[in-house]
Amino acid sequence: MTTGFSFTCQALCCKTKARAGIFATPHGLVETPRFMPVGTLANVKTVTPEQLRATGAQLVLANTYHLHLQPGEDIVARAGGLHRFMAWDGPILTDSGGFQVFSLSEMRTIAEEGVTFRSPRDGQMIHLTPERSIAIQNALGADVIMAFDECPPYPASYDNVMDSTERTYRWLKRCLAEHQRSDQALFGIVQGGVYPELRHNAAAQLAQLDLPGYAIGGVSVGEPAELIEAIVQATTPLLPPDKPRYLMGVGTYREMVQAIAAGVDLFDCVIPTRLARHGNALVQGDRWNLRNAKFREDFTALDASCACYTCQNFSRAYLSHLLRSQELLAYTLLSIHNITELVQFTQAIRRAIFNGSFTAEFGHWLSASTY
Amino acid sequence: MTTGFSFTCQALCCKTKARAGIFATPHGLVETPRFMPVGTLANVKTVTPEQLRATGAQLVLANTYHLHLQPGEDIVARAGGLHRFMAWDGPILTDSGGFQVFSLSEMRTIAEEGVTFRSPRDGQMIHLTPERSIAIQNALGADVIMAFDECPPYPASYDNVMDSTERTYRWLKRCLAEHQRSDQALFGIVQGGVYPELRHNAAAQLAQLDLPGYAIGGVSVGEPAELIEAIVQATTPLLPPDKPRYLMGVGTYREMVQAIAAGVDLFDCVIPTRLARHGNALVQGDRWNLRNAKFREDFTALDASCACYTCQNFSRAYLSHLLRSQELLAYTLLSIHNITELVQFTQAIRRAIFNGSFTAEFGHWLSASTY
Repeated sequence: MTTGFSFTCQALCCKTKARAGIFATPHGLVETPRFMPVGTLANVKTVTPEQLRATGAQLVLANTYHLHLQPGEDIVARAGGLHRFMAWDGPILTDSGGFQVFSLSEMRTIAEEGVTFRSPRDGQMIHLTPERSIAIQNALGADVIMAFDECPPYPASYDNVMDSTERTYRWLKRCLAEHQRSDQALFGIVQGGVYPELRHNAAAQLAQLDLPGYAIGGVSVGEPAELIEAIVQATTPLLPPDKPRYLMGVGTYREMVQAIAAGVDLFDCVIPTRLARHGNALVQGDRWNLRNAKFREDFTALDASCACYTCQNFSRAYLSHLLRSQELLAYTLLSIHNITELVQFTQAIRRAIFNGSFTAEFGHWLSASTY
Repeated sequence: MTTGFSFTCQALCCKTKARAGIFATPHGLVETPRFMPVGTLANVKTVTPEQLRATGAQLVLANTYHLHLQPGEDIVARAGGLHRFMAWDGPILTDSGGFQVFSLSEMRTIAEEGVTFRSPRDGQMIHLTPERSIAIQNALGADVIMAFDECPPYPASYDNVMDSTERTYRWLKRCLAEHQRSDQALFGIVQGGVYPELRHNAAAQLAQLDLPGYAIGGVSVGEPAELIEAIVQATTPLLPPDKPRYLMGVGTYREMVQAIAAGVDLFDCVIPTRLARHGNALVQGDRWNLRNAKFREDFTALDASCACYTCQNFSRAYLSHLLRSQELLAYTLLSIHNITELVQFTQAIRRAIFNGSFTAEFGHWLSASTY
């Protein structure tokens, strides 16, 4: 059993399955729907915790795989856990390491026991199992931890995905058996590739386990966008209504609106900081490259309607200048804005759900078939 | 005439020529002695203005040479001037571009008229004269602007330095004739290499011009440290006591204490941000490389006695982790600390001057011959 966690649905959309809620954790509340910034190596790239707080971010993700390799969970634990190590006193979620093992590692072998792979850091062979992932996540000490799953590639055959999804379920049972800390909520992950039947079976199995939260994994791995929407639409109705739902690795405007319409509450994506490092700003649904010549002499705020530190203080011309000068401050200022933009986008959706105006305000992002 | 500027001496040390004062500018007060961080390209590298304010920094330096090349003074002027462009509403000082022309440029030719050099940015030939430097600085709009001077290399012959120093004086007269804005204080620069007689002549000439402030230039260009101290000791007595004195390009602990003992008020140096980018922290007079293995598992604050954001929130182990992960946030956090350290070092000296304890507290940095 976990203590200190609860999910309360506060409002439902009448036309879609969108919902607004409160996810309580030992380190504070998360108002949903909510975009979650990614702090891979115990920091959101180029942004201090103080700046991150000001974006409106509540829940922050850190990556178990990366932290296991550097600095190692032992150092984080001895530092007092992830919250204290990275000076973020709000809620934190760690993933299981599964996705990175499958997407980044060379020389990996998958067996029933677990996965063996070569560390890209020092070439050493590392053996990661459900038990080891949970032990690492217990040591890191995030509020929400994720089951160790196998994330099949796209495309993959029905039989391969079925085998993988069944193994993921057996691994989940081992994760639950290993998990030690009642102050950490272990979420299960629905896999099943692009096959509705496999997704259905996985979701139904997981729902019976009465977990504190549910994730939809294995999407945004190269499949067409329509398939992501269809997978999410087919999966959410099978998940318990009184538990938070998290769509992993998704964070574009359109994908979030579509998933929220299907009843998803939480999202994570590296897009705001990654785009920043490429000189791009997310502005009201668009993506701008601030290196474009037209911004050199544009003395207006990046987004006059945005309340973030960057938009309140600096012009597009200044950001253009910093980028042309290869000044690292550009990445900080663009990251602050981009994170604020996506967090505030989900906050605006939340308000619209309360106001009964979700489809009126955000319906242009949805397929006609959604509602 | 300038308006909005004044220098008030508030306290004198009984044993040295150290002094505490207030330098008033149109954008606020500078309590002296004070270290001034360098914001070369209209930003202090990796630090936001908000973070910079919290370090205790008051006056910030920006480089005319770099800003002329990128984005160009025209864009800065049209953005509303440097303060608005970089969102720093405190005092700003721009240098003349002279030092960079002499230290960075290839293909330069020096004539009485000015200097011609090849832009390292686009290969274009640029002609910089005293009039052009002042026009650029008028357009940038800093509170304090500097005369365009020739900075001879070390070593250089007596005759060469004499020619150069005399030309610098003629250039100063042309700068004064060109200068248009009464809300900008134009400081003269004492040159003269390592030759006491030339320094003496230059200082005496400049003192007669009743400028709003005086700089000592052409030091820290490769000459032995003892020579810097001797040059400064010999120069300050010739400068008017009621005007601020600025030692250009100097910012180590020892050099600042020695110069303050000689009556210098202002300093600038890139050292805090440059060291940060190399993973180094300035801690109570020492320099630590945070990449050193011993910091990996050191869970104490960088400097428990420091009030900066970095020391209040993060451990040495965390900084070590960020550096080992090549996370840019490391440079921000170390820059915040290093700037705070040097600004607070000069603030502590200021308090000691008021308390009559300057030599008791900081005398170990001084040569026995100083007092």
